[in-house]
Amino acid sequence: MTHVFEFEIDEDAPLESLLFTFGGAEPVAAIHPGTVVVTSTRDCFAGLVRSTADVTSQVCDPRFLNPQTGPFFIEGAKPGDTVAVHFVRIEPRYSWGVSTTVPFFGALTASRDTALLHPALPELTWIYELDNEARLVHYQAVEGDLHLPLPMDPMHGTVGVAPPLGEVRSSLTPGSWGGNMDTPEMRAGSTCYLGVNVDGALLSFGDGHARQAEGETCGVAVECAMDSVIIVDLIKDTPTPWPRLENDDYLMTTGSAKPLEDAFRIAHTEMVRWVAELLSLSEMDAYQLVSQIALSPVANVCDTVYTMVCKVPKKLIGSPTAFGGVHDALRSRARGWPASG
Amino acid sequence: MTHVFEFEIDEDAPLESLLFTFGGAEPVAAIHPGTVVVTSTRDCFAGLVRSTADVTSQVCDPRFLNPQTGPFFIEGAKPGDTVAVHFVRIEPRYSWGVSTTVPFFGALTASRDTALLHPALPELTWIYELDNEARLVHYQAVEGDLHLPLPMDPMHGTVGVAPPLGEVRSSLTPGSWGGNMDTPEMRAGSTCYLGVNVDGALLSFGDGHARQAEGETCGVAVECAMDSVIIVDLIKDTPTPWPRLENDDYLMTTGSAKPLEDAFRIAHTEMVRWVAELLSLSEMDAYQLVSQIALSPVANVCDTVYTMVCKVPKKLIGSPTAFGGVHDALRSRARGWPASG
Amino acid sequence: MTHVFEFEIDEDAPLESLLFTFGGAEPVAAIHPGTVVVTSTRDCFAGLVRSTADVTSQVCDPRFLNPQTGPFFIEGAKPGDTVAVHFVRIEPRYSWGVSTTVPFFGALTASRDTALLHPALPELTWIYELDNEARLVHYQAVEGDLHLPLPMDPMHGTVGVAPPLGEVRSSLTPGSWGGNMDTPEMRAGSTCYLGVNVDGALLSFGDGHARQAEGETCGVAVECAMDSVIIVDLIKDTPTPWPRLENDDYLMTTGSAKPLEDAFRIAHTEMVRWVAELLSLSEMDAYQLVSQIALSPVANVCDTVYTMVCKVPKKLIGSPTAFGGVHDALRSRARGWPASG
Amino acid sequence: MTHVFEFEIDEDAPLESLLFTFGGAEPVAAIHPGTVVVTSTRDCFAGLVRSTADVTSQVCDPRFLNPQTGPFFIEGAKPGDTVAVHFVRIEPRYSWGVSTTVPFFGALTASRDTALLHPALPELTWIYELDNEARLVHYQAVEGDLHLPLPMDPMHGTVGVAPPLGEVRSSLTPGSWGGNMDTPEMRAGSTCYLGVNVDGALLSFGDGHARQAEGETCGVAVECAMDSVIIVDLIKDTPTPWPRLENDDYLMTTGSAKPLEDAFRIAHTEMVRWVAELLSLSEMDAYQLVSQIALSPVANVCDTVYTMVCKVPKKLIGSPTAFGGVHDALRSRARGWPASG
Repeated sequence: MTHVFEFEIDEDAPLESLLFTFGGAEPVAAIHPGTVVVTSTRDCFAGLVRSTADVTSQVCDPRFLNPQTGPFFIEGAKPGDTVAVHFVRIEPRYSWGVSTTVPFFGALTASRDTALLHPALPELTWIYELDNEARLVHYQAVEGDLHLPLPMDPMHGTVGVAPPLGEVRSSLTPGSWGGNMDTPEMRAGSTCYLGVNVDGALLSFGDGHARQAEGETCGVAVECAMDSVIIVDLIKDTPTPWPRLENDDYLMTTGSAKPLEDAFRIAHTEMVRWVAELLSLSEMDAYQLVSQIALSPVANVCDTVYTMVCKVPKKLIGSPTAFGGVHDALRSRARGWPASG
Repeated sequence: MTHVFEFEIDEDAPLESLLFTFGGAEPVAAIHPGTVVVTSTRDCFAGLVRSTADVTSQVCDPRFLNPQTGPFFIEGAKPGDTVAVHFVRIEPRYSWGVSTTVPFFGALTASRDTALLHPALPELTWIYELDNEARLVHYQAVEGDLHLPLPMDPMHGTVGVAPPLGEVRSSLTPGSWGGNMDTPEMRAGSTCYLGVNVDGALLSFGDGHARQAEGETCGVAVECAMDSVIIVDLIKDTPTPWPRLENDDYLMTTGSAKPLEDAFRIAHTEMVRWVAELLSLSEMDAYQLVSQIALSPVANVCDTVYTMVCKVPKKLIGSPTAFGGVHDALRSRARGWPASG
Repeated sequence: MTHVFEFEIDEDAPLESLLFTFGGAEPVAAIHPGTVVVTSTRDCFAGLVRSTADVTSQVCDPRFLNPQTGPFFIEGAKPGDTVAVHFVRIEPRYSWGVSTTVPFFGALTASRDTALLHPALPELTWIYELDNEARLVHYQAVEGDLHLPLPMDPMHGTVGVAPPLGEVRSSLTPGSWGGNMDTPEMRAGSTCYLGVNVDGALLSFGDGHARQAEGETCGVAVECAMDSVIIVDLIKDTPTPWPRLENDDYLMTTGSAKPLEDAFRIAHTEMVRWVAELLSLSEMDAYQLVSQIALSPVANVCDTVYTMVCKVPKKLIGSPTAFGGVHDALRSRARGWPASG
Repeated sequence: MTHVFEFEIDEDAPLESLLFTFGGAEPVAAIHPGTVVVTSTRDCFAGLVRSTADVTSQVCDPRFLNPQTGPFFIEGAKPGDTVAVHFVRIEPRYSWGVSTTVPFFGALTASRDTALLHPALPELTWIYELDNEARLVHYQAVEGDLHLPLPMDPMHGTVGVAPPLGEVRSSLTPGSWGGNMDTPEMRAGSTCYLGVNVDGALLSFGDGHARQAEGETCGVAVECAMDSVIIVDLIKDTPTPWPRLENDDYLMTTGSAKPLEDAFRIAHTEMVRWVAELLSLSEMDAYQLVSQIALSPVANVCDTVYTMVCKVPKKLIGSPTAFGGVHDALRSRARGWPASG
């Protein structure tokens, strides 16, 4: 029997009532491990940037960026456990997406931390037509005529739990609790593992992207509201220091830090230890193996700290069973669900 | 007339009841701008590390490190204002201080973010005899016999207000709200300027050091409980994006970020803009001037982000009046107060 | 008519006579643009590490690491031109490869620059059996029994020209002149574009890897001597500030710097400008487009500076012609050449 | 008896004939250890930027920046030895100095490595009147009227030897061989210790500054030609991995790397090991001691890599004798020399 929990969001809710942090908010619902959650997420601008005439810094309040859906209290989740979030379905809710440049935000501009004396780059807005059926995202230049259809590849930039040490963190920030990791690997078919820091974990997610480059270079992907279906599960007595992901082909670790090499170091030490454990290798033998087989794509180089992903092809290491096989189990349950629509 | 507010701390209070965050806690008292606050602060280990036989990672709980005194609600403080905290007196409360190495914490070790495959460095504890009268701090080697008397130079590693964006941050972290900046410039005679993010500012401070090097290299200074006297003032309608300091000789800006050059960039862009404003210079002329006169000491290279200070000698730039002259006014009030004892 | 130049290396040559720098050496031969060069490269240890009992730091002299084949003087190459190097064939010369850990070298250890107080990690050597026919590279644990066959994916870690400003750089270092970039993208079928800094360019290459992970995490790939065939071409009056690559599917830019985000910034600004030029887009429109379509794999996080690659799928942007179509022309010439053996 | 070697520079020599690298050039003279060298250095623009109307990027060729005086072959110097350079006298040669902004160079601008999409900051030139007698450097705003007299504090930005591994490095770059460290500590009265990498060491120096801030923030100090007197000595069989300095009050180590925390780590591990050796302390006891007593000023945050200094007050550690007391000996010899004129 499958528990299905439909959680509808109120798109008319005032901005002030939305969730903009990990930690620090009362849960909106309690759900049992194993529940299928059918819900939606707002876009990162809460729907306020809708045309090329809308300038982000004018129509948005910095306190109200990147609203999350949740937090959900996971019954039985305690510090030391791991929450598994399987993404069954992530579908753009409307037929448009939006990207912008934001003053002093992004990888190729002076920013709040990389503080320089330059004036801000031009602030522009791009509107993308989304064609769910054709699985296309339509790029349209704003200072020229070029139009390019790009493959749709929907994902969630943000998924996380309440942080440790009593901290409450903005939904713009990634870290050991997940948060705004902005990796395109967070697509339907993936399972995300998050270590639990507080009772009930307090899971939330959002920041849908119809697609993004590795790096989210200008700081803003093809942002859109999503209709999403996830299955939430709980792995008891198994801590996960940094978020991990799994899909049918890859085991993945993440690290979020600055400078970017520290994000790399976190992701790769985590992978070395994971591989050592799964294959009963010494740490040095696992270090050697990971050094020859890992893929190392950037997730984001724009957020308050940067995120790297380390991917190991499962079949190269004999397809070991991770986290008790929960990914395969959830994947199998997810197959009953229509992938689109 | 001087308002004096004596706020005694309860050294028998259970750890769970102490303050370990900036933001997220109810104020312990409301104080009027201009009030002299006479109070004390615990050491960063809450007094639990007392002998060379005490090992930090065994006697301390990571959730209960660096307790703060406060938060104080400053009457009338609103976002967009600046709180000025003048340190009148900072005196070690007891005749001992402590320093330690902590596994994976410090500038010269693998750490949580600079994640490497090395085992931790040895975990040791050094006890310092503090001689307030002679103004000496006694270093004693633990793996040898060397003893060296060092000048006492008491300071607070941590002073801050509630962060913006609804965040609650651990007292181990520095940032735009102040926090764990760990600069030896935060000594008696200095005024610290902090931008207000929430009503009442919610000021707290702690982490007394009998002395520390620039960098707080091993991650732990000569930690001690302090008896401290501060005067708190409010500068209305003046935002301060990053903490600034002033003493009789220097204007100072700070930046806290990683990599360390970003902390430098923040502190120096802030100083360029401050000097431009104070001397009615163009930004480029101020950039040139700061490039020839600033001192750039490191504060810490061990905390979750690193802190740099930029110092400009006031007399080199004609001793301009900053923040309406509040430092001179508070300094003058502080002179009535006994510096020691 | 195809000019073929066979350049045999003398494997008995004394170490001192080999090439360990970019710049600073007399050319070994002059070749005309368009020439097919059939040659070989030594492994990065010059063949001195041959069994699990060989310890790198004992059998190798740090002055004699990573020998290069060349330099070749490209007739007609002047500063402001670009050399195109098409890799026709890269085949392991022998049936074994080697990887090691090297004290204070690699991504997950204290290192020369990330100087910490830890002792070095254990120094170990792994020998890989290479099966050219089956296209397999055999991993064998040294502290356990695990054996894993991995796909062979031969590449050159190093290809470069003489640097600008009269510098001579070690072959261990990557930079704007190419050098030790250590990207798995430098495989047969790829064309590498290098800006010319001195008359004749002074091209050399080496550091064959039977395969490596993105990041070359432990600092050493599956190192092996190679029999390689390249076609060298010259694109006049076209500067290339940082090395670029092209294969049938991707346009690629590289950046080599520290911290790693600077390598990312270089690669991505280069790509934004390249895409703007190729598609006649404004820089901001190109910034937006690259932000949604680029792949951003790490090349190395172990060398003296780190290297990032930015990849844009050619078909997503209408398969524009870059560098006058030289890749397609060389690829077509290369098809006449046997890919293996 | 004192050997005095007067080495006059030819100010009419063509730019191409000057020295712009460490390594890669024939020595201009051989000198015996103990020799007093009386010579001059050109300013970093080779005298080409002389008025506020001179724009650096127009009047200077990037290949001909930062000319050095030397290289001098030190008789008897072998790899594994250390050269000691004592600065007896550093006096501005003319009554003017110059500073500029240079496109994409400096700490508070996009740069070659921190590659962003911003246009360059304005390019301006400031001329300083130098008053050797009054020991003043006169700042004059160029976009306003402000004039400020600043203390003269002459120093050499660049001093170094040939690098290891056969490298030849631009005089714009600092590293383990010294080079463009740009620390204000390189003033008269200081002794600089440099590890020898090639026979004769090949010492050169230049880049005089009438003064500079810690950080050399805009990338250019108050640049001027200098008349300088140095004493060169040789310490046999004593390697020095990174440049060290000593004056009457401080022992100093340096590190040059990016990110800036790596420069800090190098300087501080070097100091920990130096203090351990000088005081016969264990490494952990020295780590603790340095963590409480070091000063950590920035040298530069603008060059191709950044430089940090770590300073330990000699009297706090019992004024140990370093490098066999060579500083005191040279200082004493220098006292015979007129400090000015």
